[in-house]
Order: sequence, then structure tokens, then C-alpha cells
Amino acid sequence: MNTTQAKAFGTENTTAPLKQMTIDRRQPTAKDIEIDILYCGVCHSDLHTARNDWGGSVYPVVPGHEIVGKVTAVGSDVSRFKAGDLVAVGCMVDSCKHCSSCDQGLEQYCLNGFTGTYNGNDKHLGIQTFGGYSEKVVVDESFVLSVPANLDPAAAAPLLCAGITTWSPLRHWNVGEGSKVAVVGLGGLGHMAIKLAKALGAHVTLFSRSPEKTQDALDLGAHEVVISTDKDEMAKVTGKFDLIIDTVPYVHDLNHYIPTLSISGTIVVVGYLGPLEPMLNTVPMILGRKSVAGSVIGGIAETQEMLDFCGKHNIVSEIEVIKMQDINEAYERMLKSDVRYRFVIDMASLKA
Amino acid sequence: MNTTQAKAFGTENTTAPLKQMTIDRRQPTAKDIEIDILYCGVCHSDLHTARNDWGGSVYPVVPGHEIVGKVTAVGSDVSRFKAGDLVAVGCMVDSCKHCSSCDQGLEQYCLNGFTGTYNGNDKHLGIQTFGGYSEKVVVDESFVLSVPANLDPAAAAPLLCAGITTWSPLRHWNVGEGSKVAVVGLGGLGHMAIKLAKALGAHVTLFSRSPEKTQDALDLGAHEVVISTDKDEMAKVTGKFDLIIDTVPYVHDLNHYIPTLSISGTIVVVGYLGPLEPMLNTVPMILGRKSVAGSVIGGIAETQEMLDFCGKHNIVSEIEVIKMQDINEAYERMLKSDVRYRFVIDMASLKA
Repeated sequence: MNTTQAKAFGTENTTAPLKQMTIDRRQPTAKDIEIDILYCGVCHSDLHTARNDWGGSVYPVVPGHEIVGKVTAVGSDVSRFKAGDLVAVGCMVDSCKHCSSCDQGLEQYCLNGFTGTYNGNDKHLGIQTFGGYSEKVVVDESFVLSVPANLDPAAAAPLLCAGITTWSPLRHWNVGEGSKVAVVGLGGLGHMAIKLAKALGAHVTLFSRSPEKTQDALDLGAHEVVISTDKDEMAKVTGKFDLIIDTVPYVHDLNHYIPTLSISGTIVVVGYLGPLEPMLNTVPMILGRKSVAGSVIGGIAETQEMLDFCGKHNIVSEIEVIKMQDINEAYERMLKSDVRYRFVIDMASLKA
Repeated sequence: MNTTQAKAFGTENTTAPLKQMTIDRRQPTAKDIEIDILYCGVCHSDLHTARNDWGGSVYPVVPGHEIVGKVTAVGSDVSRFKAGDLVAVGCMVDSCKHCSSCDQGLEQYCLNGFTGTYNGNDKHLGIQTFGGYSEKVVVDESFVLSVPANLDPAAAAPLLCAGITTWSPLRHWNVGEGSKVAVVGLGGLGHMAIKLAKALGAHVTLFSRSPEKTQDALDLGAHEVVISTDKDEMAKVTGKFDLIIDTVPYVHDLNHYIPTLSISGTIVVVGYLGPLEPMLNTVPMILGRKSVAGSVIGGIAETQEMLDFCGKHNIVSEIEVIKMQDINEAYERMLKSDVRYRFVIDMASLKA
């Protein structure tokens, strides 16, 4: 398969800092879109994969799955996009397209495994996929999204992971006008959950351990902030929430939040992968028909729906734009939660 | 308040065997139904309450919440029942009737606490309620159900707890024609779950650790039995079930069953109250949008719906009829799972 070279930023092993490198991108096939990357958001998963925190990383790793760019070329069978279009690519660049999940537009749950935008199995080149920390990318048109023209393209980039990861459970659990939603944790995911739930018409509460985040949460659209370490404040929201979106990325006690769910309410974990410690107690779940669920990103059609919704409601992420060359420092700051609320790389810095 | 005496069977403390005693029943108020008890099912909760296994038992304890009987008198405001009607009473005899749960017909989740048929707070007499191990009971008509005439009244009794406990989650999670349902555990609850799910049109699988239960499960209507300790059998049902009803009453590993849920599937715990050990792992939940939920009994309207459904489909419990005087032996056999699948007391034995 014909390829062209592209500048990228990646790492050769678990401990090396990210540095500039050259990667191969395929020449667009009939169904492909070639995209000049303008901006790429920085997600915690980028760091975890670069450092092989979850195992399975194949090096070099070129992270990045919150991509916004301009179409530079399209394959002969492509009808939905043309050169010059503002487009986006999220966490997936392919899936099997024929399983029951893909048939339902749930490519994120593809039974044969979706192809991750980075560290996935590239069906075309037979190696790992390389992500958005790069000057360009070539993607099957089925996995390319349209970006509404009114959105700031840099601030729209995080919608492709942080946005859809919170949008999908809001939609699946039917959040709408009058719903009572709580968000646990105010980071990249949490701040998007607040904005999206609010725009859907929900009453939105932030659970936080940090009183200093209160003003930020209110500015982002939350109706109230409950300090989760304050027993009296917690008691006041007993039985309140139809849905809790838990964005906390480390192990924590879910039992703490179950009493704040309404009858038949659900807490959906989107941030923490691992065993629930301390152990989840079934008593309040049984006595209130409450559920603990998980959810990952969202389907392609759902992602487009989210982008269109954001266009209509003028919703983007709160971002700090960085240069590609500053990525290693950004990772260190991200580990200390020193970002409000998402780093986005201006890819002009790589091309310069 | 005027009362009359009634024969009953109960226990005076945590260790004493159940014995005959005399209790007070109120004279029917304007909204009450007086019921001559014909049969009463024997539930694990009866034993747990008699022995104070869960704490909070008030003595004497007169258990029994699977009651079928004949109306002998009705209060002046009662319009739905008349003397001679075949009626039933389940796990609840009252609730606040004005909270958001009660307003939705979810009396089992009454925010002010429903009144249990036994060991509840009797609003009329100011003492604990006494259950169905008795010759008669007086109950607010709102908590009295009609029993379809075609059902064997003895075998219908367990529908009031074992039946509704499995019916409610089947309905809440929209089980119908073509649904794939699994049941964990074949006891009083499990055998009703199989019958009800089958009659709703679902494909029904029993998970069991005991190969010797296979023929029974198939006879009850299960389409297949999967031996849950057999890795190959478990692998064959990966991703299969829309809903798993877990009736196992002791701590066990739910992680074992999560992979057998379909995308967006739910496992609902109805039998085990306590911490989930080993710890539940969020990874397969997140990567398949799967839920772990709890559920308890069902609402009054839903219980009537279930009884009517059972009448239409000729569904009753598999029972062994015992005399009231044999209850202590029956408890010991129940603890050894030596019952297929529910003991029911013929209350004529108490009256004799």
C-alpha cells in the first residue's frame, strides 16, 4: 500500500519523553478522507498509553484522539465530505461494521473490537494506528465527523472524547428537561458533563471534594455544588438524582453516592477502570432499584448528534492551547490536575 | 381500637421454635378487609426474621407474607371486595400513600417506608404487625389482591413474594418476546423467574452449579441450563443475555456473569443483601455498557398485574403443602435447600 510520510510526536518506550518523529500515513483509498490536523486535545488515555499504564502499548506510540482538521483530499467513493470541510475524528477510526453493535450504531461496543485511533490494529498497514499528535491523518469516511462552523475548532477538539463520553450516558439514560443529574469530579470529562446536561434541560449538581471548585462549577452551568466529604450536605441530596455521571479516574467509594440516587436511579462510571473498592453494598441498590453501570465513549452517529447539539447550543470545552513541543510538561501538569479543563495542541507548532 | 383474638404461630425470641400463640387482630375499619387465611407460603425472610438474622426483629414474631384466603367481612367504605372473594396479601399491608413512589404505584419503594406484613409498624395497634401464620388477618383494601379463580389457591400463595420479586424486574427491564433472560439459582425465586420469563416470551437459561437440577429446570420451562462452574459452557453464552435475574441468597461472584450479558445488559440482584465480594470490576461493565442493579418485590398494581398474568397463563408455584405444626422442621429443610420449590402451610391445620 502506498504511503506518505508525516511529522508526528510520540514515544519509543514507556519512559521516554515524547519527541518528534516521522510516521507513515496511507494514501487515501476510495473511501478515505485525508485530514490536515489543526488541533488535537490531550486526554488522560494518551498519557496512560504512552506509558503503557494499561498494558498492551505497541511502540512507537503516537497518541491523540480528539482531532479537528481540514479535509485536504477525499477518495473516489467519498460523497459526504470535500476538500476544505472542517471535520473531526474521535477515539475510533474503524470497526467491523457488521456485528449487532455496529448495526445499531454502537461502534464503541463493536463485538469484534473497534480500531482505536492510536494503538489500534491498522487494517491497512498491518501495524499499530498512530493518533492525532501529527500533521495529518487518513481515515475511513464512516469515522469522520462534521464540525459545526460556529464552534471554535480548538475548543471543539475535546468534544470528540470528553464530550461524547459524557453525552452518550446522558442520552442512553434519557436525560432531558427536568432530569436531576449529578456529576462526580470536575475535570475534562466532568466539566463537559455539566455543560451538556445543563443544555439538555437537566438540573445539574457537582459532587466535589474541593470547595475551591465551587465557583468554577457554577460558572460552567452547575445549579449547585455538594461537597461530598460533608455529611450534612450529602444528607440534603438523599434520593435526589436520576443519573450520576462518575468521571473520577481512580478507585473511590461508590457506596457514598448510592443513597443520593432516586428510586430506579443509575450511577454510571465513565472514568475508573478496575475493581470497586470498597465493596459495593447491594442493600441500598435492592431497596431502591438502583443501578451501577459503565459506559465508554459513544457511537459515530451519536457523536455527530452531540457535535450538532453543541453547534446549536454553542458548547465547547474550556481549554488551554499548547504547542506540540510542550506536551511532556502538559502531561506532568495533567497528572496534578493542573489544567482547566483540557489541553489542546495547536498543530501549527509541529508543522512550523 | 377494638380487637379480636386469633390463633397464630410465632416465636418469642431468636432461638425458640415457633409455637402456637394468640394474637390480636383489629376489628375491620371502614377501609379494611377481614380475611380467613387458607394458605400461607414459607419464605426465607420468615426464617431470617424469626431468628433476627437481619436485626430489628420485635418479638413475638409471627411470620408469613404469602397469604391467600377468603374475605369474611369488609368495612363500610370497601367497594372492590365482598365476603367470599378469594384474595391475597403479600409483603406489604400499608405505605404512606402520598410520596412520589406511592404516587407511581411503587409502594415497595415508599420513601416513608412501607408497612411490612410482619415485623412492620402497625399504624392501627401501635405494635409490630403479625403475618400470615395465623387463622385470619385484617388488611387495608388498597393492599389486598384478587386471586384468579382458575389458580390452585395453595400454589398461588408463593406468587405474592417469590412471584412478584421476579416479575417486577422482568417488567421493569422490558422482558418480552425474544428477550434473552438468564436466571441464577433454582429455588423459590428462581423457579418462578423461569416460569414467568418463559410465559413473557423470553428465551430462558438457568445458571446452576448443580447438574442434577438440569431436568427440573427444563421441566419448569427453561430452554437451556448452563453449569456455571464449567468454563466452556460459560464461554458459549458470552454476550448473550439482555437480563440476568440473580436469585442467589448468599454472597457470590457477580464478575462471573457480567461477560454473559449482552451490550447494555443488566444483572439484577434480588436475593443477596450485602457487600459484593469479590469486588465488582468496572472494566467489562464500561466496555459493554452493562449494569448491576437491585430490585425488591413489586408494587401493588404490579402484583395484581402479575396475578392476572398467572391466571391467564395458568402459572403457579411448585409447592409442598405442610401443616402449621411442621413449620420448624420445614425451616430446617429450607436451610438445606431441601424443598421443591416452596413450602405452603395449609392453615386448616391451625384452625383444627
